[in-house]
Amino acid sequence: MRRKRIGVVLSGCGFRDGSEIHEATLTLLSLDRRGAAVVAMAPRVEQAQVVDHLAGKRTVEIRDVLVESARICRGAIVPLGTVPAGDLDGLILPGGFGAAQNLCTYAADGAAMKVNPDLEALLRALRAAHKPLGFVCIAPVIAAKVFGELRPRLTIGNDPDTAAFIDRLGAHHVECKVDGFVLDPDLRIASTPAYMLGPSIAPVAAGIDKLVGAVFDMAA
Amino acid sequence: MRRKRIGVVLSGCGFRDGSEIHEATLTLLSLDRRGAAVVAMAPRVEQAQVVDHLAGKRTVEIRDVLVESARICRGAIVPLGTVPAGDLDGLILPGGFGAAQNLCTYAADGAAMKVNPDLEALLRALRAAHKPLGFVCIAPVIAAKVFGELRPRLTIGNDPDTAAFIDRLGAHHVECKVDGFVLDPDLRIASTPAYMLGPSIAPVAAGIDKLVGAVFDMAA
Repeated sequence: MRRKRIGVVLSGCGFRDGSEIHEATLTLLSLDRRGAAVVAMAPRVEQAQVVDHLAGKRTVEIRDVLVESARICRGAIVPLGTVPAGDLDGLILPGGFGAAQNLCTYAADGAAMKVNPDLEALLRALRAAHKPLGFVCIAPVIAAKVFGELRPRLTIGNDPDTAAFIDRLGAHHVECKVDGFVLDPDLRIASTPAYMLGPSIAPVAAGIDKLVGAVFDMAA
Repeated sequence: MRRKRIGVVLSGCGFRDGSEIHEATLTLLSLDRRGAAVVAMAPRVEQAQVVDHLAGKRTVEIRDVLVESARICRGAIVPLGTVPAGDLDGLILPGGFGAAQNLCTYAADGAAMKVNPDLEALLRALRAAHKPLGFVCIAPVIAAKVFGELRPRLTIGNDPDTAAFIDRLGAHHVECKVDGFVLDPDLRIASTPAYMLGPSIAPVAAGIDKLVGAVFDMAA
């Protein structure tokens, strides 16, 4: 039987300047347990910043999003923009500040945010093909920006400012606990709060596993 | 009830020059699910090397083991050498090349390998107190080096050269599948092959969860 091919878009390696490592790893785990073929990808761009995760402070280093993302998936990753929507049965975006800084400019620009053009094109093409999409942690702001006019139901947990921002983009924010997820069944968009709520890896894993299950099951 | 305190020794962030990210994350997940308090630590030393995980080639960068390890545990980490054995109920070492390069010199020196002195002292003190120890992937070479004279039963899977090396240090290598683990019940030392065998994250997670369960259950 053909394995379902699920894309995973990474944004670096570390929650303060890249992908949240637990969220990304747990997404890969849940996909592998279901027998999915993972297609990991990341933009080949400089990180918006590099942060010392011990001191919590920005450094002067320069790192590449694709190169650092490769750490999470053991080198098995390709540049965003090289995988056509037709090669995928679904797509999942883990969170971390990288999702808000390297995949879009939400962290810097707020309402004036732009989404990486390759990512936006891929999301729109998958949506047009009715393929399922999953957004973890802060990544639902990207869904709100790209699909706001379709009024998707999304969650980032219960942070009032981020929820209000999502509503302002046209989407409909739904409060959700860390070990749950929100599904928009018409749009086939799933989201889960993960480390927007935390507080620790076990409940984050529970929510991500439910989101991955929903995306996997909806994938043709 | 007092939570069991389990130490986790990291060695960087990425399997080619630091901790294997999946192994480290899955260790944290299995500990959190059991209600353990995790005490993450890493040596404050320069990495032996920095490897571009996309190209698979060494770079000219310099990175600090403790600072990079902090990415995996969201900043909640302390320098190796600052946690006395009396503060821990058990200890686990995930693998990755960092375990063979930054926690000891096995990768460079083979049989002449040295173990980080803080790590060796901690391991000996925990062993003297009959506290359980877990070694993942390539990390059992450290157990073989430190405890060889006690003839511990250890596994790194089935790699003939590494198994012979472990036997040469006095330990007794036992073949093991990726989703299993080997326990030396007298010495309270557990080991599992993880990515020494792979091939993917789901079976690696199964083996690590069994190892963590054994260490957790043996911890007082």
